[in-house]
Amino acid sequence: MDRQTRIPVAVLGATGMVGQRFIELLQGHPWFELVGLGASEQHGGRTYAEVSRWRLPGSEMPASAARLPVVPCRPEALGGAKIVFSALPAEVAGDIEADFARAGVAVFSNAKNYRMAADVPLLIPEVNADHAAAILKQRKQRNWSGCIITNANCSATPLVMALKPLQEAFGVKKVMVTTLQAISGAGYPGLSSYDILDNAIPYISGEEEKVERETLKMLGRWNEGNGFTDAAIVVSAHCNRVATREGHLECASIELGREVEAEEIITAWENYQAEPQQLQLPSAPERALLYRREPDRPQTLRDRDTGHGMTVTIGRLRRCPILHYKFALLGHNTIRGAAGGSILNAELCASKGLI
Amino acid sequence: MDRQTRIPVAVLGATGMVGQRFIELLQGHPWFELVGLGASEQHGGRTYAEVSRWRLPGSEMPASAARLPVVPCRPEALGGAKIVFSALPAEVAGDIEADFARAGVAVFSNAKNYRMAADVPLLIPEVNADHAAAILKQRKQRNWSGCIITNANCSATPLVMALKPLQEAFGVKKVMVTTLQAISGAGYPGLSSYDILDNAIPYISGEEEKVERETLKMLGRWNEGNGFTDAAIVVSAHCNRVATREGHLECASIELGREVEAEEIITAWENYQAEPQQLQLPSAPERALLYRREPDRPQTLRDRDTGHGMTVTIGRLRRCPILHYKFALLGHNTIRGAAGGSILNAELCASKGLI
Amino acid sequence: MDRQTRIPVAVLGATGMVGQRFIELLQGHPWFELVGLGASEQHGGRTYAEVSRWRLPGSEMPASAARLPVVPCRPEALGGAKIVFSALPAEVAGDIEADFARAGVAVFSNAKNYRMAADVPLLIPEVNADHAAAILKQRKQRNWSGCIITNANCSATPLVMALKPLQEAFGVKKVMVTTLQAISGAGYPGLSSYDILDNAIPYISGEEEKVERETLKMLGRWNEGNGFTDAAIVVSAHCNRVATREGHLECASIELGREVEAEEIITAWENYQAEPQQLQLPSAPERALLYRREPDRPQTLRDRDTGHGMTVTIGRLRRCPILHYKFALLGHNTIRGAAGGSILNAELCASKGLI
Amino acid sequence: MDRQTRIPVAVLGATGMVGQRFIELLQGHPWFELVGLGASEQHGGRTYAEVSRWRLPGSEMPASAARLPVVPCRPEALGGAKIVFSALPAEVAGDIEADFARAGVAVFSNAKNYRMAADVPLLIPEVNADHAAAILKQRKQRNWSGCIITNANCSATPLVMALKPLQEAFGVKKVMVTTLQAISGAGYPGLSSYDILDNAIPYISGEEEKVERETLKMLGRWNEGNGFTDAAIVVSAHCNRVATREGHLECASIELGREVEAEEIITAWENYQAEPQQLQLPSAPERALLYRREPDRPQTLRDRDTGHGMTVTIGRLRRCPILHYKFALLGHNTIRGAAGGSILNAELCASKGLI
Repeated sequence: MDRQTRIPVAVLGATGMVGQRFIELLQGHPWFELVGLGASEQHGGRTYAEVSRWRLPGSEMPASAARLPVVPCRPEALGGAKIVFSALPAEVAGDIEADFARAGVAVFSNAKNYRMAADVPLLIPEVNADHAAAILKQRKQRNWSGCIITNANCSATPLVMALKPLQEAFGVKKVMVTTLQAISGAGYPGLSSYDILDNAIPYISGEEEKVERETLKMLGRWNEGNGFTDAAIVVSAHCNRVATREGHLECASIELGREVEAEEIITAWENYQAEPQQLQLPSAPERALLYRREPDRPQTLRDRDTGHGMTVTIGRLRRCPILHYKFALLGHNTIRGAAGGSILNAELCASKGLI
Repeated sequence: MDRQTRIPVAVLGATGMVGQRFIELLQGHPWFELVGLGASEQHGGRTYAEVSRWRLPGSEMPASAARLPVVPCRPEALGGAKIVFSALPAEVAGDIEADFARAGVAVFSNAKNYRMAADVPLLIPEVNADHAAAILKQRKQRNWSGCIITNANCSATPLVMALKPLQEAFGVKKVMVTTLQAISGAGYPGLSSYDILDNAIPYISGEEEKVERETLKMLGRWNEGNGFTDAAIVVSAHCNRVATREGHLECASIELGREVEAEEIITAWENYQAEPQQLQLPSAPERALLYRREPDRPQTLRDRDTGHGMTVTIGRLRRCPILHYKFALLGHNTIRGAAGGSILNAELCASKGLI
Repeated sequence: MDRQTRIPVAVLGATGMVGQRFIELLQGHPWFELVGLGASEQHGGRTYAEVSRWRLPGSEMPASAARLPVVPCRPEALGGAKIVFSALPAEVAGDIEADFARAGVAVFSNAKNYRMAADVPLLIPEVNADHAAAILKQRKQRNWSGCIITNANCSATPLVMALKPLQEAFGVKKVMVTTLQAISGAGYPGLSSYDILDNAIPYISGEEEKVERETLKMLGRWNEGNGFTDAAIVVSAHCNRVATREGHLECASIELGREVEAEEIITAWENYQAEPQQLQLPSAPERALLYRREPDRPQTLRDRDTGHGMTVTIGRLRRCPILHYKFALLGHNTIRGAAGGSILNAELCASKGLI
Repeated sequence: MDRQTRIPVAVLGATGMVGQRFIELLQGHPWFELVGLGASEQHGGRTYAEVSRWRLPGSEMPASAARLPVVPCRPEALGGAKIVFSALPAEVAGDIEADFARAGVAVFSNAKNYRMAADVPLLIPEVNADHAAAILKQRKQRNWSGCIITNANCSATPLVMALKPLQEAFGVKKVMVTTLQAISGAGYPGLSSYDILDNAIPYISGEEEKVERETLKMLGRWNEGNGFTDAAIVVSAHCNRVATREGHLECASIELGREVEAEEIITAWENYQAEPQQLQLPSAPERALLYRREPDRPQTLRDRDTGHGMTVTIGRLRRCPILHYKFALLGHNTIRGAAGGSILNAELCASKGLI
């Protein structure tokens, strides 16, 4: 596509943490042009520069966003957008996203509301690109001209990406995962600094349930007739918050479908080829997965920005005395696990002519 | 015991992180009187105040330690001590501790060197007080008039304490544990601030092996004839370093010997009575274990100082989809997991007349 | 005073950061008995345990507070209290505190509203105990049977304490101060962790003005006829927020009334004797000021808890090439700079029979 | 210059923090080609990949450096290099740098050893480009065919850059500065995490003296006849360490040569044009100085990477009650304040034909 034909897009929930990531990542996007910004609070048509402070370190508020008015999250207020990226909180996302889909807009959502719906894809292009086809049924069933496509919880996403090649090659039966999650995952203002400085908290509300459930849908199957079938995997998650800015580190133990050598697993990760890379989607990293052989990687700080935050880094594969193997993995939670993942989903759907 | 009869004790490795904890905890101890300080480096008889800076926040260098000369770690240089507490690094601990034991001194060691030896107790008074009897065999076999008694790795210690009542009540078969360990566990200077600020590191050299191995010895049995028998438990550990000052948080999943209700487990923890509490040892906390029912506890910052750092805090007991149950636990690594644990060991042995 | 005659007191703004410090410090207080808790939000008479989470690490919610109902901040709702400690936000403190004073209650306030009023003491017992007498005029002028006594901004307080002995001995003409302030100074939830982790912020709204202004009132004079006269000192402040939990570190340069030797200054600090210590007020630290001669003290972490958070630590006195001398000082912002300071004020007034 | 004619350069002290920054910044440099790596320790000709771990987050060890052998810091071992960038510690820098200069190499040094020498430029291209000419005298006097050019302490550098336009426009008479310096300034491993997490330290050995002295030389004059003349400015510095990774934040109060309006000062900063920008040197940022009008900038985290770490950000200009004005400024300490500054110095000298 050339610049003349860029698809007009809008961001819902534009003033939050993930909303800002969307705006940052859409800046200069070759296929999408940011034309609208919606927020759940009332801002009376003031511009984004007037109502929002830029909080992402290392970048400035893009000029193209700064001058856009911040409007209510209603289809008529964001009339020009063919795609909306939703960073809305779950409390309001349900109705608003449906309104847009009904109005003919393709909604790519980070909210949890529709993730587990029987006709809504929970999509990671490297993992289950074929699930995108569920929107055809969705449109028919719901009588929508638009659609809703979701991406998963920020902890489930990198875990599923690391598991996918193993599932394909060997089968996966059990997954025990403990996360060390960054503060940005709680949004903004999110965690009080008084709660997390010199602290680790072994609890994130609702998070473990999402990891345990969403993983199965993403690694499961879709077909027109039966809809979604969960993968036959048991997942157990323990989610912790630690004092890191970005990047979710996860310690996983897995039982595979059969006995394999460690090098077979590493080879499966290293050779993994998926659709976004083959299609050369603009936001696809060169490598979806990177296995590092140093003894102490991945580390949150050092590895989160690999592939502009879109690569999942894996390391420390070794035998587990209880299940088969254990390893560590890391994904950037507000890029791969949120805004970047949604944009890649939109690129996939656009390139396949689904939207 | 009254003040006239306090036992003279010395600290080996007195200038390091754990050495300072020993000195802090021995200040005003009702049974033990600090009479000597040894260091592996040469300090030419200068006083502790001259050669060491106090690094523990919240306390000052005790005056009684400040004026003691820092001497080489040799029995003849620390002649008055009947007990030595060793915070020596593993590189030198092996020979030095044996020298003291041979010279008739009771050595309570934090080093890993003798932990797995067939005649050396790896002791937690609340868990395996009867293991202390192994020193009788040790003395005979090694022809020592003194002895060596070790305490475990700082991650294994609180885990074992949380497991003990469950082992007694229901049996324990499998333990999967992921740790979030504080920087003080690496000693001083330990981790570079540049390596850990805004970071989490999924690796601590040798740590996982220690947790997997030492747990079995501590939960195992001792008898005069057969020596130590490991508990029939499989442990799998994944150890991480996070940016907290003190306190190791651990996420555990366990398979028990039989199906039980969650409340039975909590009751086992809450009712747990052990020897140090019954004997009212000076360093014994009122409760060895504290189960908290808030959804987000234990937290490193909030719970590490419970029971002056000697209580292990447990929380979040819930079903595990793979093993039976999962929960979080927390222990203070340089107190319960190091200096405080050693001192409690010495109190136990003194109160039983073993030393 | 014995337990029978303890004065009943209440805390206003009991659910916030400073409110919790009040509750913590009042636990077991020999003169004051906590009988009431007020909050600006509506809690329908539920207990403190029901409406508030305890956020101070290292302590638990005191049982005596846990069972108290949380009531509106109105005199009739807190009828039994003879003293109220106010941790109310400035937005509501003005009217509420006046209501209590009118109703005969002695209000000890942390809010800024009345600090600069012409008949309201801005009190630090070690600095300007005689200012307390202003409440006699206050009662007459305002026709109040109670009174309002304020304590200063948490940055101004330790600075003023360090300056006072120098003012007495040599005179003080100019003070340039740059602060490094802890996150707890912003209350709870206060700063987002995303804003301060790996960051320093050279701005705290309204803070510099308070330091520059309140310092002059506190170091100034009070007499019945003329009221308050500001000290003839010029103060310039630059206030920064850094990622520390508690403790405000300040770098000061000063011009004195005359040339003096460094040791004279240190002697002035070390010999400083003030009324709270002479009266042995329960919350008075043994030393109001502690000068440390190590080259790198005071440090936020190591020195903030000196004197249970009531001692101001000073260090690094050396020549300033522009003004006369420079030095560093540190005070605990939520204890000496807030709740502890207010309680000491109340103790002073009670011991002098002013309330 | 085109790629065929790139100047061969080497890095001394290649395994340290600043050494790694040199290697990172030299990667793909249009004028300089990295051909050698020296270290003060012995590495027996092993490659950089073998002896060094890459510690800079957000980048990988450049392949071009990874395969270079690490050799002793002697001219004959690094024979091909026409320029060496020295990140050596002061203990060894003195002799080694002189050896290279004697051997005909242009040495760009971060060490303090020669900074204040009467014939050695202490160079910031935007500030005192004309000082570079001192190397002609240096060569003559010392009979060197090479030369030594130093850059300043990482705190002095951004301060001097902010002062320069004011000195030119209005004169500067007094500067009071308090710094909040990042941990990377202490090198690697540098500060123990146990010393700085939840802490601020009001002392950095030797730092204040450097700021107070080096500033005068850099803002002073050079001429062939008289050598260097210090600027007639009085500087008073208070240096603190805080828990930030990169970026030194500084709070300055200044007395100017005459009374001016705030907007005149801002205009002086905003209009400042200097030689590196005019010459379009490869490492010159578009703007040497950026003034931000938000009330709370510059912030360490948000502003340190401006201009790829080569721009100094200024903000919060306001009246000082004691001197004329106060403001905050921020510079990236390991880029502008160290490796990036040295490389820009080399670019300036190369473009002027001085080397």
